[in-house]
Amino acid sequence: MSLLEQLSAIVGAGNVLTGAADLAPYLEEERGLYHGAALAVARPGSTGEVAAVVAACATAGIAMVPQGGNTGLCGGGVPSERGDSVVISTERLTRIRRVDPIDFTLTVEAGCVLATVQAAAAEVGCLFPLSLGAEGSCRIGGNISTNAGGTNVLRYGNTRDLVLGLEVVLPDGRIWNGLKRLRKDNTGYALHHLFIGAEGTLGVVTAAVLKLFPAIAERQTALVALDDLDAALVLLARARRTSGDAVTACELIPRIGLELCLRHIPGIRDPFAVPHPWYLLLELSSSRPGGLREALEAMLAEALGEGLAVDVVLAESLEQRRALWRIREGIPEAQKKEGGSIKHDVAVATSLVPEMIRRCTRAVEAALPGVVVVAFGHLGDGNTHFNLTQPDGADKQAFLAEWSRMNRVVHDIVVEMEGSISAEHGIGRLKLDELAHYKPTLDLDLMRGVKAVLDPSGLMNPGKVVSFPRDGRGFSVRPPGGCL
Amino acid sequence: MSLLEQLSAIVGAGNVLTGAADLAPYLEEERGLYHGAALAVARPGSTGEVAAVVAACATAGIAMVPQGGNTGLCGGGVPSERGDSVVISTERLTRIRRVDPIDFTLTVEAGCVLATVQAAAAEVGCLFPLSLGAEGSCRIGGNISTNAGGTNVLRYGNTRDLVLGLEVVLPDGRIWNGLKRLRKDNTGYALHHLFIGAEGTLGVVTAAVLKLFPAIAERQTALVALDDLDAALVLLARARRTSGDAVTACELIPRIGLELCLRHIPGIRDPFAVPHPWYLLLELSSSRPGGLREALEAMLAEALGEGLAVDVVLAESLEQRRALWRIREGIPEAQKKEGGSIKHDVAVATSLVPEMIRRCTRAVEAALPGVVVVAFGHLGDGNTHFNLTQPDGADKQAFLAEWSRMNRVVHDIVVEMEGSISAEHGIGRLKLDELAHYKPTLDLDLMRGVKAVLDPSGLMNPGKVVSFPRDGRGFSVRPPGGCL
Repeated sequence: MSLLEQLSAIVGAGNVLTGAADLAPYLEEERGLYHGAALAVARPGSTGEVAAVVAACATAGIAMVPQGGNTGLCGGGVPSERGDSVVISTERLTRIRRVDPIDFTLTVEAGCVLATVQAAAAEVGCLFPLSLGAEGSCRIGGNISTNAGGTNVLRYGNTRDLVLGLEVVLPDGRIWNGLKRLRKDNTGYALHHLFIGAEGTLGVVTAAVLKLFPAIAERQTALVALDDLDAALVLLARARRTSGDAVTACELIPRIGLELCLRHIPGIRDPFAVPHPWYLLLELSSSRPGGLREALEAMLAEALGEGLAVDVVLAESLEQRRALWRIREGIPEAQKKEGGSIKHDVAVATSLVPEMIRRCTRAVEAALPGVVVVAFGHLGDGNTHFNLTQPDGADKQAFLAEWSRMNRVVHDIVVEMEGSISAEHGIGRLKLDELAHYKPTLDLDLMRGVKAVLDPSGLMNPGKVVSFPRDGRGFSVRPPGGCL
Repeated sequence: MSLLEQLSAIVGAGNVLTGAADLAPYLEEERGLYHGAALAVARPGSTGEVAAVVAACATAGIAMVPQGGNTGLCGGGVPSERGDSVVISTERLTRIRRVDPIDFTLTVEAGCVLATVQAAAAEVGCLFPLSLGAEGSCRIGGNISTNAGGTNVLRYGNTRDLVLGLEVVLPDGRIWNGLKRLRKDNTGYALHHLFIGAEGTLGVVTAAVLKLFPAIAERQTALVALDDLDAALVLLARARRTSGDAVTACELIPRIGLELCLRHIPGIRDPFAVPHPWYLLLELSSSRPGGLREALEAMLAEALGEGLAVDVVLAESLEQRRALWRIREGIPEAQKKEGGSIKHDVAVATSLVPEMIRRCTRAVEAALPGVVVVAFGHLGDGNTHFNLTQPDGADKQAFLAEWSRMNRVVHDIVVEMEGSISAEHGIGRLKLDELAHYKPTLDLDLMRGVKAVLDPSGLMNPGKVVSFPRDGRGFSVRPPGGCL
């Protein structure tokens, strides 16, 4: 029986896709950078089917590429051009297995769309706080595999902090059942943490126990106009202390970001009378109604009095809150409409964000005169989307051809400041060489060692996250026995 | 040069201990279960010295036992009776390297006593929320290596959730520098999570970046008398929702626990007029003063009205708060004074705690008539210290000889309920066989694989946490090449 016949026997013929039209959506990724090929896409409907699919591919020596919602930004979820792998889609693993509001846990299968997971929590008066732009289509298994961040990291942490347990199909097809609903469990190594953020290179996440929180009863949102970035830091720390640590979002918006939105996104208005160099979108949330607005008003009044803040708009309604968020959320799309955009997803310690933005801005402006810096993002957790829009009138392709060079300029500074070259989006395929360039050899060796233990055949999502030195023919040189 | 001469050259002769009197404190552990022996204790004063010590021992083929404050409860930090290892004490690694209140981070060396770390945070108006009984003597490297829990897990998580980065000396002496102060960093596998909770079996933690929180401005503490355990769960969920998730502690106290304290601990009084079967010590904390007491009073008034709670004492002062906590904190010592105590540190999903206590109580009473069950602990995170005090008049040693049998009775139930046989205290040496008995073979294989990658020679804290199958001569059989 051929591999495809085996797969059809496991998942049903209708769930093994091979035709070009059927395959297409699984082969393209969000940024249009890579155009993959595959032997087939398999769509298992249960953990058992995933295990059987993986075992069959492993036995046949065929590489596998796990894929969730295919919203990743580093090409980690799509196969390479070689076309010699099978894409394993989790889209049919959509069961919500358990809802436990007293325990504040939710057990879901990897193919559940994030928005569905949020809704399941809300139905029982709880909050699953992971929230990102793609939540209408990304799947929780992908969020887990990429350790997705989003806007609520400051208060609730990354996906890693929201996972209590996992079920994973290992590269040899065995099912590792780590689905614990426990808050405390010190019985050995924290294996589940290896799989979180491993971007599908150590196994296929098939289910997870998620941590819930009490539902939000009150939110207060303000857009604060600032003269300088350092004021933003002081404001943030003050907001955390005076609000009972109720700050759930602290988003930085540069003037150019608002201008691009005004220019390209219908329905967005400047909330202030005059332009300001920087804006901070501050949001406080609490499951206990009352007191939040007073705390925020008092803090902002004091900031205005000191000249720390120049102007403030406090949302008076849900509609006004949404309008303020649209300014922040519109920036990536507005940039697209301006033309080419070279992106960085970097992080430094929060207190270093102003310096990082200043240094990187000077460096890229010197390296590429006329480039328009659009630096925005999650100030609260030190993560800036330091994006570059093409100079006015420039040729888009010529500009985009500068991507690697600009990455080096920015990443050199960020790494020197002990930061991260990929705060949220992961490594995938896009940043494989950057990682090998910047990561200490010891770290790379440890990663290779872990990879070799869990995936000695190297068939699980090869060419992603972990790189191996290449020999003269360009083939990966894997250490013998796979150990350090 | 002998190994001891090398070590003296590295750390100074005064920091290599070999005399019996000098060694003694390092060889005994908290519970008096094990009486180890060692070639020497080395006390390095810097990460570089730790690395050199480890390299020297590794080259000489000598096993190493990292030790912090030696307050562990599973014998993980003391050497075995064989006397063929070197204890590496972190007690001189006491520098606080950086304090960053704007970033809410603190970078400390592994030998810092936990109380010192808490004070360093408080000095800059922040909170390091890890808090446990031994905080006056345990060291942060040990807390990290055991993923210590404590009383604040419900709100702030375990030590794992409080660590942003680590510096670790690997078993071959290389220094892995993972000291990041970042909230977001998706550049490869989460290697630091392997070392957290590894109990010194994968390397020596020498420094860490810790996460801080805004300082507590207001606490409200109540002792609630209940008729039954299930009411406690409802109360806890309600307290979380109505307080803005401000619950920082939720400790369960059985009547017998209070009675033992009244009997053995001077200064403790029964806060209520009549006995009650169960008590819940509930504490809410906020960095924003105001509103907390009203929320707690309203919640408790409602609970009293419904009959969910039978009586309530609300602390009116710091002294009253301390008095309430003394009741909870006095139980372990009161048990000691009653005689032999067989301990369990188990966890199940929070909603299953009442059922677990009921089932385990019935089972141990049937297995050992007359045994006195004292079940108390961190209800909020599902962790119960299900301890057994000897029957009245029983022989202490005969009772303690039942330890393993009782462990099996309790652990069988806990494992069947998908719980943990070691919620907080880890595995060490004490629970090595229990772990091998209960943990699925696949989990043990994965752990062995990770251990083999990081410590192929098996010299780093052997005989702890990870067991290897033994051959006919009783020697560990390690997989070839160390891989799965």
